[in-house]
Amino acid sequence: MSKSKAEILTIGDEILYGQLLDTNSQWMSAELDKVGIKTIRKTTVSDSREDILTALKEAEARADIVLITGGLGPTNDDLTKPCLAEHFSCEIAMNEAALQEVSSLFKSKGLELTEVNKMQAALPVCCDMISNKLGSAPGMWFERNGKVFVSMPGVPHEMKKMMVDTVIPQLQQIFQTDIIFHKIVKTIGIGESWLAEMIRDWENSLPSHIKLAYLPSMGQVKLRLTAIGDNIDELITEVDELIESLRTYVGKYIYGYDNDQIEEVVGKMLFDQSKTIALAESCTGGYVSHKITRVAGSSEYYQGSVVPYHNSLKINILGVSEQTLLDHGAVSEQTVYEMANLVRKKFNADIGVATSGIAGPGGGSPDKPVGTVWIAYADGEQTITRKLQLWKDREINIQATAVALLNLIRISLSKSIEIKQ
Amino acid sequence: MSKSKAEILTIGDEILYGQLLDTNSQWMSAELDKVGIKTIRKTTVSDSREDILTALKEAEARADIVLITGGLGPTNDDLTKPCLAEHFSCEIAMNEAALQEVSSLFKSKGLELTEVNKMQAALPVCCDMISNKLGSAPGMWFERNGKVFVSMPGVPHEMKKMMVDTVIPQLQQIFQTDIIFHKIVKTIGIGESWLAEMIRDWENSLPSHIKLAYLPSMGQVKLRLTAIGDNIDELITEVDELIESLRTYVGKYIYGYDNDQIEEVVGKMLFDQSKTIALAESCTGGYVSHKITRVAGSSEYYQGSVVPYHNSLKINILGVSEQTLLDHGAVSEQTVYEMANLVRKKFNADIGVATSGIAGPGGGSPDKPVGTVWIAYADGEQTITRKLQLWKDREINIQATAVALLNLIRISLSKSIEIKQ
Repeated sequence: MSKSKAEILTIGDEILYGQLLDTNSQWMSAELDKVGIKTIRKTTVSDSREDILTALKEAEARADIVLITGGLGPTNDDLTKPCLAEHFSCEIAMNEAALQEVSSLFKSKGLELTEVNKMQAALPVCCDMISNKLGSAPGMWFERNGKVFVSMPGVPHEMKKMMVDTVIPQLQQIFQTDIIFHKIVKTIGIGESWLAEMIRDWENSLPSHIKLAYLPSMGQVKLRLTAIGDNIDELITEVDELIESLRTYVGKYIYGYDNDQIEEVVGKMLFDQSKTIALAESCTGGYVSHKITRVAGSSEYYQGSVVPYHNSLKINILGVSEQTLLDHGAVSEQTVYEMANLVRKKFNADIGVATSGIAGPGGGSPDKPVGTVWIAYADGEQTITRKLQLWKDREINIQATAVALLNLIRISLSKSIEIKQ
Repeated sequence: MSKSKAEILTIGDEILYGQLLDTNSQWMSAELDKVGIKTIRKTTVSDSREDILTALKEAEARADIVLITGGLGPTNDDLTKPCLAEHFSCEIAMNEAALQEVSSLFKSKGLELTEVNKMQAALPVCCDMISNKLGSAPGMWFERNGKVFVSMPGVPHEMKKMMVDTVIPQLQQIFQTDIIFHKIVKTIGIGESWLAEMIRDWENSLPSHIKLAYLPSMGQVKLRLTAIGDNIDELITEVDELIESLRTYVGKYIYGYDNDQIEEVVGKMLFDQSKTIALAESCTGGYVSHKITRVAGSSEYYQGSVVPYHNSLKINILGVSEQTLLDHGAVSEQTVYEMANLVRKKFNADIGVATSGIAGPGGGSPDKPVGTVWIAYADGEQTITRKLQLWKDREINIQATAVALLNLIRISLSKSIEIKQ
């Protein structure tokens, strides 16, 4: 079975001149890859009529599918729509379905529909409109001689919703695709090279049609298994068996699969165990609370947080002993121990957790350099504390502390998992 | 003076299939832009002889300068070098200077030079070698009919060093370059189409060598001015004057320039006015606190936060009146009014702000649908409340609320700016 070929065409001066990092095309090609469509080229051109028309013509000669982002805004520098109309030799006219969508979008926000926004609903008559649930520029779907052109906004969340809801499903229907099955195993709390050593035998025994990739990120390593074949059920079974075997090597570091996020996994554990949580965040400044509350339904198990950044609030709002702060400082095992236990009681939660550290760039000292962080977990029966020695970078330290704290909660809630000392 | 045109050619399956994010081409085009070389296209192709040769031929027809990264490793799937030799019709032979460099690199690291690495010093005889101080693959510089091709490794730090040390200086010598000056004006709290209408006269009066682009994102619109000429001082003066004039149209929406972030701007205002702030976040779950505390030095003006997610905490920790919650609900003007004033007093801050809303996807009702959010600002003299009607998406609602709240703080701190009702 031959693979269908796609080209991704990005339109916009801000990408071309390096003012904006193009993350769309990576995401799009990864999505195409999942359904067996091969990206053969990525092209970026400027907001110029001539360059866009040339790129459309070239792409049509090379690819079966052309996915276009950008240049769909309401202003004069947005040329994608007129260029597509010219390329497909058809007129632009008001699309009533698009007009209705943009009208109700504006109405729902209590905004008046301006003439400029109204014109966004005018589309080439030879295309099908693709709904944009999150913005005012509809997508466009063109077909000619068995080839498909799709135009989407460059705004990432608008494009992604269109791709997932409409474009990928329709492409799958139209094009016969090879079967590629990916499964991602997510590990936390172990570095890439240690992980590689622990699973060496398992990795060496993988069959040739199944590939392994290590994808490290902050405090986590994703293992991506890619299986190629012609029977999806067989591939899934084979990969599942391999993962069962992988679990015997590194099971305690595995927290989830594919799109699972550590905060979702922790949330589900709390929900399943009918436990509630409260946070006292110092150096992380609300970031862990944000991670937990970005999960839909988190109000079921999340009670609340306090960020007692100023030391007086650690005493007055949370009740940390002044003597503890004087004797040991805010960044100390004793302080996070008290913070976790106090927020648990004050916020009427089953579990209390805490962070306190020196995120940087300032505030370090010889015995507590930038990157020194304490975290704690308390559930009324036990209090667990951990010291982290992190980096010099403020944002990295905040994120790494969040990952470590979420992992500490995960480990503590997994009674079956031996607690790593 | 006409601008020299560059094309950036990226070679590699891992970029094309979305396994790796291409950050090189953004950096490269921004560097070219600084010296007045215009990137007219970015192209990514796979590790395939035919695709590379086609891309080289096309690029030569379009551009004066072709910068190529990737495909220079020591393994068989790295095809850039043989393809360049084929494109320029010349042999590959051992380059003694390159061999000496790679030999001393390996020696300095105490490594033995393998045959595979030795072959990396074999280069097309029609190119000049470019030193790679950080890796084993040398760069290559080709010239033909006044056009320049440069091949560099895809490893970002190796490519960047070559660009800065050798490629950019040599390109500047060879090509007469125009000067391009960019300035980004950052607006907040107004949509793209309203902005466009308000500044239409100003936009229409721009001289032909100064271009304007609208770059919208969540709750913000960036206006990018691009000026082209031959005198940098004149361009800067001209752009500054245009921005002064722009301020008379939409000054109250402008919060900063170039890389300024709204949370940094608000932080600087608080610092400059010696004011402290505390937050009571409900629907934003700690996200605004995170934004504020990710700024280095925020402990100077940030006191702390409470996230009283559960209603009992709004009462017990913060002191919101039970009657208010009973009469009006947690998502109401009355509740955020109390939250902002209470956190201000309890956390001993000059300014208290609050959020409460239905982030979704659940929790909506006919009179308070998902996306209904109240925010408040209190400074002891005045309390300002705002209702937002946002979207159906939880993450977008959290982010949009954060932007709106930071903008409310900015407006309230700008005494000179009329408060928009």
